[in-house]
Amino acid sequence: MRMYDIIEKKRDGCALSDEEIRFFIDGYTNGVIPDYQASALCMAIFFRGMTDREISVLTDAMARSGDMIDLSRFGTLSADKHSTGGVGDKTSLIVMPIVAALGAKVAKMTGRGLGHTGGTVDKLESIPGYQIALESERFLSQVEEIGISLVGQSGNLTPADKKLYALRDVTATVNSIPLITSSIMSKKLAAGAKNIVLDVKVGSGAFMKTPEDGKALAEKMVSIGKLCGRNMTAVLTNMDVPLGHNIGNALEVQEAVAVLKGESRGDLREVCVVLASNLIRMVFDLTAEEAQRRAVDALDSGAAFAKMKEWIGAQGGDIRYLDDPFLFPTAAFSDTVKSPVSGYIQKMDAERIGTVSVMLGAGRETKDATIDYSAGIILRKKVGERVEAGEILCTLYTNREAALADAAEHYLAALTIGDTAPEAQPLIYEIVR
Amino acid sequence: MRMYDIIEKKRDGCALSDEEIRFFIDGYTNGVIPDYQASALCMAIFFRGMTDREISVLTDAMARSGDMIDLSRFGTLSADKHSTGGVGDKTSLIVMPIVAALGAKVAKMTGRGLGHTGGTVDKLESIPGYQIALESERFLSQVEEIGISLVGQSGNLTPADKKLYALRDVTATVNSIPLITSSIMSKKLAAGAKNIVLDVKVGSGAFMKTPEDGKALAEKMVSIGKLCGRNMTAVLTNMDVPLGHNIGNALEVQEAVAVLKGESRGDLREVCVVLASNLIRMVFDLTAEEAQRRAVDALDSGAAFAKMKEWIGAQGGDIRYLDDPFLFPTAAFSDTVKSPVSGYIQKMDAERIGTVSVMLGAGRETKDATIDYSAGIILRKKVGERVEAGEILCTLYTNREAALADAAEHYLAALTIGDTAPEAQPLIYEIVR
Repeated sequence: MRMYDIIEKKRDGCALSDEEIRFFIDGYTNGVIPDYQASALCMAIFFRGMTDREISVLTDAMARSGDMIDLSRFGTLSADKHSTGGVGDKTSLIVMPIVAALGAKVAKMTGRGLGHTGGTVDKLESIPGYQIALESERFLSQVEEIGISLVGQSGNLTPADKKLYALRDVTATVNSIPLITSSIMSKKLAAGAKNIVLDVKVGSGAFMKTPEDGKALAEKMVSIGKLCGRNMTAVLTNMDVPLGHNIGNALEVQEAVAVLKGESRGDLREVCVVLASNLIRMVFDLTAEEAQRRAVDALDSGAAFAKMKEWIGAQGGDIRYLDDPFLFPTAAFSDTVKSPVSGYIQKMDAERIGTVSVMLGAGRETKDATIDYSAGIILRKKVGERVEAGEILCTLYTNREAALADAAEHYLAALTIGDTAPEAQPLIYEIVR
Repeated sequence: MRMYDIIEKKRDGCALSDEEIRFFIDGYTNGVIPDYQASALCMAIFFRGMTDREISVLTDAMARSGDMIDLSRFGTLSADKHSTGGVGDKTSLIVMPIVAALGAKVAKMTGRGLGHTGGTVDKLESIPGYQIALESERFLSQVEEIGISLVGQSGNLTPADKKLYALRDVTATVNSIPLITSSIMSKKLAAGAKNIVLDVKVGSGAFMKTPEDGKALAEKMVSIGKLCGRNMTAVLTNMDVPLGHNIGNALEVQEAVAVLKGESRGDLREVCVVLASNLIRMVFDLTAEEAQRRAVDALDSGAAFAKMKEWIGAQGGDIRYLDDPFLFPTAAFSDTVKSPVSGYIQKMDAERIGTVSVMLGAGRETKDATIDYSAGIILRKKVGERVEAGEILCTLYTNREAALADAAEHYLAALTIGDTAPEAQPLIYEIVR
């Protein structure tokens, strides 16, 4: 078997055989197949696509390229969630305690933020004492005992995806549904859960800019996950506007806690209920209505918040911060951004707002940059709301005083304020099962 | 400027700017742009194509990536020829002396054979004493004095093409008209001639299998050559059947001499007259009829053969071999292949016959293999001819006795013999100006 023939076959629009796909992934992972052949194949896949059979074999081969987490001790109760990435997205901090409180088993690996999107690892690390790295056996025994643990990625998970993604990132071959699907789903397969909910973000702050593109990706991931033996649901959610009101690590933990305490009811709570109820629907084989009733109950009864405290405490986090968010250190500098005109907020460029939070110190421009947990933005007005000239639009928090003026200017530039109220946008576009 | 953006732009079907194309070629040649980005771009070009403007800038950038031969001292008289490669193609040995005899200036660089196609360098080296490597000044002064010199490629000509072609060869991106055009034409531009005739071979022994594909390539090369300031003509010639009767280096020199002496009149002479007359038509701005009359005259008067002897002698070759071809050493072993049945030769697989000649020692399977100048094949029957069972189809010559049986078997397998005479095929499909 020769890599040349595999490239040529895909270039000419033919489906690759299982053996050819495994030959490629094995050879590329162990360095026998060079980058220049892999990038040519990725570009041919960009143009020619892949059948579901091809994508599922590619996904499986990538999942098997390194360690696989074995969650078989949890039977069919294991639950995982993946978000394609957005701004202000702290849903994992809310959804996972809800489903754990209801009896699902959450053994979740999570990542750091990069660019305009945050990462759950960073948010958790803003809680003093939280241990993001656990030995594998302790990780799983915590899940056995209390039903939930969230750790950083460790070990040698999906090395094929790491290598291939880095290559796609510099050869303009990221934006291909078969390749995105296999990248995301291989990590989910290797992470071991039986039940998976995908939060596919759509809009100005997301990778997928339109509901149509998001739906195509969602459908593909759902069908590939099923072909690989997992229960799958994808929820298409709005990311034209940041989710919730807080952006920045400690600020997002505080907002998540407010939702879990029942103090905050808005778009964030609504998205979390949809994600959580779809997970427990699959885990316990419930009707959609019954699943939603249980998710809302877990929130309203305080069970989900209790589960969060149990989890954070078990991993060494100081739970006094959850009871009293005012304990979180505040940034040295803050400033409000006021509206220069009166009108309706018609649009927010969520990606740009994410970038403002990075300017303030809340995110990373490069992989090695450090994070300021107290930095970020609290939004006071979102799309559809009316503002008067001089009214506060948001508050910026930072330890970099010099960044404030620029950040305020970019924040204003990310908004469109006009005379008429914009048409209401759906928060949930669609649920794909 | 970033290579990533250039790949993405081409991937999305946009035309690259002049600056972007030059940035790519400069960066790739000097090693700043890695192979994996270049191969991704080549695959994107395979799918998206290039405008004539893009191809001409790419061709020019590749031509300028190394040394350029300066033939300005010959004004508008310089003449060059390129063949896309076939089996039994010894036309350069005939065409170039014809046009030099008529006053054109031939300063030609030529290549070695690889795989099933031969190379003019190897054919010339079968003449004892012939010096294929000349110092640049001696090369040009010989052209000044006697009008013709053929040398091997030397110096640092089109390093961008060498590097890019080697990459395309292992990434299934050879077969792209913009990339083939820029590869061939960059070498022709760097070689410096004002007037260029292209022999685009079409058929079973050629890279282009159909007249339609050949015409598309021919038209592209002609228009790009013109955009780069050269006079261009392309001739689409038949390569469903080997050209002439002799295949193998010394055997092909002997057949070329026979044509120049007026002893051989067939497809080979006809193709050479068309190629030569199209070159002198451009060089001297003649009508097609006048140009053809002069080419035929040069052959019939002996002027072209006299020019060949002058040229070969000037480069140290023993011209007694031209006067008396029996001086060439004969291979130690030979055998005839006889027809197992009676009928008409309906088809010959010219590529496979080229491969038989390689088995006999006349060509190279790899770049470093050595060549046996006396090895080869003399065809006795070609497509359209009637044979009786037991009649000789060809004679095989080799110094590898063990290769004879296999070679004979493959030769027979390359022929289709049937009851009816095949439809006559054109020798010249079309002339593209």
